[in-house]
Amino acid sequence: MNVNIPPIDGSARDEAETHQQHLTKPPGSLGRLENLSVRIAGITGDPQPALDSAVVVTMAGDHGVVTEGVSAFPQEVTQQMIENFAAGGAGVNVLARTMDLENLIVDVGTATDINIEGVIDAKVGYGTANIAEEPAMTRKEAVTAIEAGREVVAVHAFNADILGLGDMGIGNTTPSAAVTTTFTSESIRDITGRGTGIDDDSYEQKIAVIKKALNLHNPNPVDPIDVLATVGGYEIGGLAGVVLEGASRRIPIVVDGFITGAAALVAVEIEPGVAEYLLPSHSSVESGHAIQLDALGLDPLFDFEMRLGEGTGAAIGISVARGACSTHREMATFEEAGVSK
Amino acid sequence: MNVNIPPIDGSARDEAETHQQHLTKPPGSLGRLENLSVRIAGITGDPQPALDSAVVVTMAGDHGVVTEGVSAFPQEVTQQMIENFAAGGAGVNVLARTMDLENLIVDVGTATDINIEGVIDAKVGYGTANIAEEPAMTRKEAVTAIEAGREVVAVHAFNADILGLGDMGIGNTTPSAAVTTTFTSESIRDITGRGTGIDDDSYEQKIAVIKKALNLHNPNPVDPIDVLATVGGYEIGGLAGVVLEGASRRIPIVVDGFITGAAALVAVEIEPGVAEYLLPSHSSVESGHAIQLDALGLDPLFDFEMRLGEGTGAAIGISVARGACSTHREMATFEEAGVSK
Repeated sequence: MNVNIPPIDGSARDEAETHQQHLTKPPGSLGRLENLSVRIAGITGDPQPALDSAVVVTMAGDHGVVTEGVSAFPQEVTQQMIENFAAGGAGVNVLARTMDLENLIVDVGTATDINIEGVIDAKVGYGTANIAEEPAMTRKEAVTAIEAGREVVAVHAFNADILGLGDMGIGNTTPSAAVTTTFTSESIRDITGRGTGIDDDSYEQKIAVIKKALNLHNPNPVDPIDVLATVGGYEIGGLAGVVLEGASRRIPIVVDGFITGAAALVAVEIEPGVAEYLLPSHSSVESGHAIQLDALGLDPLFDFEMRLGEGTGAAIGISVARGACSTHREMATFEEAGVSK
Repeated sequence: MNVNIPPIDGSARDEAETHQQHLTKPPGSLGRLENLSVRIAGITGDPQPALDSAVVVTMAGDHGVVTEGVSAFPQEVTQQMIENFAAGGAGVNVLARTMDLENLIVDVGTATDINIEGVIDAKVGYGTANIAEEPAMTRKEAVTAIEAGREVVAVHAFNADILGLGDMGIGNTTPSAAVTTTFTSESIRDITGRGTGIDDDSYEQKIAVIKKALNLHNPNPVDPIDVLATVGGYEIGGLAGVVLEGASRRIPIVVDGFITGAAALVAVEIEPGVAEYLLPSHSSVESGHAIQLDALGLDPLFDFEMRLGEGTGAAIGISVARGACSTHREMATFEEAGVSK
């Protein structure tokens, strides 16, 4: 797979950095908001970027590994939550409404037929196979999942000024932990968290299942398609595609929690240049998330002790980025306002 | 001074806590957003509070102590920035527009006559006296400043669902540090920061000036009016009044940075019950801010390395609180959405 990722626009970034020095505030006093707007200038190539159109892409998939008892919720909840998304009742929908963001719900690989108005059908397969026994999907399906994610951006979000990543899929912290373990040198236990909230026994079982899957498939860390195919998930592939396509179009992409972190790692392994297009949002309770952010070179903006996924952290992150870019664009300069410097 | 502060509504808070358990998410997965909405339920007495009308009150004053060379900017900048506020060009104005908040600009004690449309005139005096030589203001003026802040809420923000505190005033980190030192047991050096950005020499001078003022006036920590009168500021008093009046009306109040932290300390010393009505926003770069938040029992929501004041941190904090309350109010319950629990 080959995606053309343009380099960051250093001249737009430098121009933005200079512009910051003229705004009516002590230099540096907006802290990380200043860095954010300068980074987004480099990403977009616009020295004064506007983030009018913001789109959170929430991708759903199912996971055969749930038969191993790794999740606190039954698989049917994936479909039920998609219905909830479509009706506007889930966390990410409410935040999107409150914060004036668009929210795309995409079925990349749920186990059931989803015929719900407003849900984008990009299904690659009816849930992955149980990674403790078989590869999650074929290599061809892994590529198709990534392409599906790319197409969602190309068709439905090509006009976005900023993208947020989100996920839904019962069981999906298990493949995310397997993917993260493969790409980083940390231990399975440090990377594996309790997902939606499993007890001690299920947690030990989850670690054992991930260990078994990694031993069985021995995914090749320098071959991200192999990692995705053997121990990944359809929505993880789709979200990696969103990252790749977004970066190729110079759109900043806000990472959410642990599943989107795994997807970002896959995308960076495919095209290292996309790392420059990623922006952090929160630090998740899920323990491996900090390890992912570290590997991605991202310093989280905030820690609200969240672990819901769906793109809820990314939605808040986008709203912070908007604050950053609006102050950057709309604040008066010392000269304009006649304020002594 | 006596302000009637109602107790928190425990039954609304408990009802909100129970409601959180029914929303379509793993329990606790929205982390601090859940705590925020539950706290706001207790404050407002509404188990499902809405934060439609949000008002950031930015209060301005001048400080005689600037003649001691404690600030990086000249005093005239206070008036210039008020003009900038009125024209919508300052950081807090832009954030307020972006985040759909109202922003009130109030002159409580600037050194000049401000006749600018849109700026509320609540002037108590033309800048404080130099606290290194004299008390900042008379005891009567201190009470009047607090009353002025109360009146701003009563007249201009009585309908607010949430208030944010903001400040403007060249030199105002110096009285804020003096006030904070009086109310806490930390050292002047730990509490004193570099404000808008002073060099090492000016920083040592600032500490010496604060030390001199505290030695000269020996403000009585159990008499907050005395503290405000001897080493405070008009906008600090006004903001303490906003806290008192807001709490008396069951309106949650979001603290901003170091100056608003000093005002909150004054308000809590006057009526300890107001502490329950305060919400944190950011952790400021100004070193004494963490000490204030600790004394107020507030755990900051985020740290963007900001130190602009004006209410910029509070504005972002309000937007987070809105996200918290909107998810609390608008997310579907498991029962409504037919999602397995």
